[in-house]
Amino acid sequence: MELKTAANEICNSNQMCEGENYSQNVLLRDKIIDLKTQIKEGAEGLGHGFSDFSNVFASDLLPARNGEQYTEGFLLEVFNILFSYIRKTFDRKSKVLDFHHPHQLLEGLEGFNLELSDQPEPLEQILGDCRDTLKYGVKTAHPRYFNQLSSGLDMVGLAGEWLTAAANTNMFTYEIAPVFIIMEGLLIKKMHELVGWGELEADGIFSPGGTLSNLYSVLIARYKFFPIVKLKGMASLPRIVLFTSEHSHYSFQKASAALGIGIENVIAVKCDERGKMIPSDLDEKIITQKENGHVPFYVSATAGTTVYGAFDPFVKIADICQKHGLWMHVDAAWGGGLLLSKKHRTKLSGIDRANSVTWNPHKMMGVPLQCSAVLFREKGLLQACNELSANYLFQPDKQYDVSYDTGDKTIQCGRHVDAFKLWLMWKAKGTRGFELQIDSCMENAEYLYKKLKSRNDFELVFPDEPEHTNVCFWYIPPSLKGMPRDKEWNTKLHKVAAKIKAQMMEEGTVMVSYQPLKDKPNFFRMVFSNPASKKSDIDFLLDEIERLGSDLEI
Amino acid sequence: MELKTAANEICNSNQMCEGENYSQNVLLRDKIIDLKTQIKEGAEGLGHGFSDFSNVFASDLLPARNGEQYTEGFLLEVFNILFSYIRKTFDRKSKVLDFHHPHQLLEGLEGFNLELSDQPEPLEQILGDCRDTLKYGVKTAHPRYFNQLSSGLDMVGLAGEWLTAAANTNMFTYEIAPVFIIMEGLLIKKMHELVGWGELEADGIFSPGGTLSNLYSVLIARYKFFPIVKLKGMASLPRIVLFTSEHSHYSFQKASAALGIGIENVIAVKCDERGKMIPSDLDEKIITQKENGHVPFYVSATAGTTVYGAFDPFVKIADICQKHGLWMHVDAAWGGGLLLSKKHRTKLSGIDRANSVTWNPHKMMGVPLQCSAVLFREKGLLQACNELSANYLFQPDKQYDVSYDTGDKTIQCGRHVDAFKLWLMWKAKGTRGFELQIDSCMENAEYLYKKLKSRNDFELVFPDEPEHTNVCFWYIPPSLKGMPRDKEWNTKLHKVAAKIKAQMMEEGTVMVSYQPLKDKPNFFRMVFSNPASKKSDIDFLLDEIERLGSDLEI
Repeated sequence: MELKTAANEICNSNQMCEGENYSQNVLLRDKIIDLKTQIKEGAEGLGHGFSDFSNVFASDLLPARNGEQYTEGFLLEVFNILFSYIRKTFDRKSKVLDFHHPHQLLEGLEGFNLELSDQPEPLEQILGDCRDTLKYGVKTAHPRYFNQLSSGLDMVGLAGEWLTAAANTNMFTYEIAPVFIIMEGLLIKKMHELVGWGELEADGIFSPGGTLSNLYSVLIARYKFFPIVKLKGMASLPRIVLFTSEHSHYSFQKASAALGIGIENVIAVKCDERGKMIPSDLDEKIITQKENGHVPFYVSATAGTTVYGAFDPFVKIADICQKHGLWMHVDAAWGGGLLLSKKHRTKLSGIDRANSVTWNPHKMMGVPLQCSAVLFREKGLLQACNELSANYLFQPDKQYDVSYDTGDKTIQCGRHVDAFKLWLMWKAKGTRGFELQIDSCMENAEYLYKKLKSRNDFELVFPDEPEHTNVCFWYIPPSLKGMPRDKEWNTKLHKVAAKIKAQMMEEGTVMVSYQPLKDKPNFFRMVFSNPASKKSDIDFLLDEIERLGSDLEI
Repeated sequence: MELKTAANEICNSNQMCEGENYSQNVLLRDKIIDLKTQIKEGAEGLGHGFSDFSNVFASDLLPARNGEQYTEGFLLEVFNILFSYIRKTFDRKSKVLDFHHPHQLLEGLEGFNLELSDQPEPLEQILGDCRDTLKYGVKTAHPRYFNQLSSGLDMVGLAGEWLTAAANTNMFTYEIAPVFIIMEGLLIKKMHELVGWGELEADGIFSPGGTLSNLYSVLIARYKFFPIVKLKGMASLPRIVLFTSEHSHYSFQKASAALGIGIENVIAVKCDERGKMIPSDLDEKIITQKENGHVPFYVSATAGTTVYGAFDPFVKIADICQKHGLWMHVDAAWGGGLLLSKKHRTKLSGIDRANSVTWNPHKMMGVPLQCSAVLFREKGLLQACNELSANYLFQPDKQYDVSYDTGDKTIQCGRHVDAFKLWLMWKAKGTRGFELQIDSCMENAEYLYKKLKSRNDFELVFPDEPEHTNVCFWYIPPSLKGMPRDKEWNTKLHKVAAKIKAQMMEEGTVMVSYQPLKDKPNFFRMVFSNPASKKSDIDFLLDEIERLGSDLEI
């Protein structure tokens, strides 16, 4: 067959690359890719090949008899669609998004009808729907997408998520997820070591996001002090109160509302101008609460606040918690990644004195969503607080060590496998690889900070160097430049970010977040967590804001 | 180039299949697949090709400069590993699992070391790790895997999950997940219609599993009657109690422990022999609780109990809830799928009178994990109960209709996209396709039931025909046959299922669950949700139990 000739040709050139010469290896691979492309193009040139699924239906796929070839063809087409999307995602010439309003999507766009029908549609349509879903979505890994704390798309993480989907199992028992359970345990142990609890037996769990991880910490702390709550509820407790800074994440309010503690029992501790909790205010508020007859039990300090990226003074907070006998939690959902950097981990000094830590690898470490861990210093509390020993699931007479069944540690029953992609990325990068990635994001933040200081059409929200990758700033359009900085100025400035953001989204060139904070009018919040973003993207962002904002009439 | 000749050859045969002749289409496709295989084998024959990643690292992949070809090659290798796994999964000649104990995995198996290191490992190792992860896992889509309510692997669902991973976004705002948000809304609406609330505006949310969906229902019901709880906590409430049957899922205890209600305030309502809630006992218990000064607020009825697959009498329960003014929830996590079957949906008659419904498409509908929805009849409660209006995320001055932002409806912040795979499957199958799939699983249960009745080495736990796909039974080994059915018999019978299950897992031939229930010793619980399972697999299971159990000395 003719293909053999092509193969032989490559086989000959193959001899060149013995000795693992890198660039020759690349040449060889290019040749093979060329070969593959030609085959593919040949097949597509037929107008048929893998790409004609207009007469093939889901019911033709595995496990249908003889479904194997259709299935491989269909999944390969999906693969091609996804890879083409990935390529565009990292291509600066492509738009970050192609914005449409809800009513437009609901009415249906050309060939993309979202309504569900009674009868099946051919796989050709399904493939088209996949293309359209991506087309009208947002490229969260685009180098100019800066909108959330989670961004980027790690290729090994993606592979991990694809495998997780194919394995399609559940974390509740070792029985059906043996490898994943062991991996989760090793990750929890590794994270324990990084927090600084290395000598203790690791305990913790992966949960569906940082807000639920924070909820776990409040739940477990409450149980530690008042185990009766499990049986009798909050009615059997005194009025308990918890403390967190005014800059902390809203998850503590959410948790307190859900857990029956009540939002008014979440006491907001003041922050300094930089967004860090003021320890003396914490101490005073604890004392005041006690004087009022309430019972303080829990303090959450933040490692990397959502807006300012501030790190609370953990050692001082730990001293106060120790003095009053309170549970100390550190919400390091955003800042936890810095534990992997020798240069930046000192910002978390004192975290080892916490009783629990939330850490979201899906943020700074770039793991695909969802991947959040909550870690506990004391082993066994999770299990004691949540176990109900349902015997349809956790049979004590299994043939293996059932202490590996994790289901009774959680407030869930079924639980998605979130650990594998992180495990695979850790293997592929090593701790060192995460460090490089994180340090490089931090350098981007520093670069932006210096840029902003050097330009007079931008103004920093606070003057200090960034501690995390958050950089907060205003754009001051020419029309506001000469005005006195009074109430009217504030009102006008408040509108600037929203207007510029709306135009950014319409044009799809870049995405960045904005918000007000207390008395401060809307400002932009830049964050870096995407390894794809370069300094040139930062330059682009500032120029783009200026382009969209310079003619703004407010 | 020689490849053109091959392509032309196919091009000629292509003319045969104009007119969309199905079998000729298959022939054509086979040819192309052959061609592809030859290319691949040619490349592999070189000892290099795509499969040599021993000198390539994660840092060489996108977004690295020139990373595109490495990335495509790496992801294609992953694809091949996954497709090979999928093929084996549906192959009855392959084992369901290759069992190892936790300590064996921890010590490391040949070439598979789970420990994490500081330095990166080459992608060749990462690919090997992917292979090993699957090798030592459990094939949850194997036709002879009957271990959990979630089983099978839908190819379109898998494609949906792969796309979701590539899109890597978050459900909290329309801004970054426009298409997925609209799809979720349409699915919630569709499920509303199927529940029978069609005329009302749909409300609900996808949550990370049925237990959290059930928790949502308790949370929202509590808020509906006592909105003050959000601010002041449970301290401001009377002693509230909820009701659920003794056969219901343990999630109501979990929820009550977490929400600060307390497990002792979950009142277990008696069931009949078939596992259905006894309405008169519910009514009596509500009255007794009131007499004790407690405040009933919530009843959960079950559509498809976990072990027996029983459906509670919803109409009678609804009447009682109405009489006492209580919130009625239906936990249809398992049984919800039957709403799609004209033949079986009458089992859920009365569900339209519920205030909330939990329904897990990742169970009976075969959607990949995780996919669970909680539905509410009254629109707006979810938002009112959970909203905190964090302005870093939910800016009111966005350019689109911000009522589409779903983040403030949830107890999470970030939320994984669970809706897309279900949407894609619904498009691909149509409602009708789900119906066929579900009816066929129900037929399997009926077949097993009849088989068991006809054999005298098996005994049914209850004599009635299955209402769902659950079939519960004992295997009676020859050594127990003649014995009097006393306490000792019970003790011995209790050990049978555990022993057989352990051997099944060691041999990896089949997997089925077992458990005791109240005074009943361990029995097997069969469930069907995998469309891959055929009647021959049921025959195999019974023969296998007999093979493993007939010599059993207890």
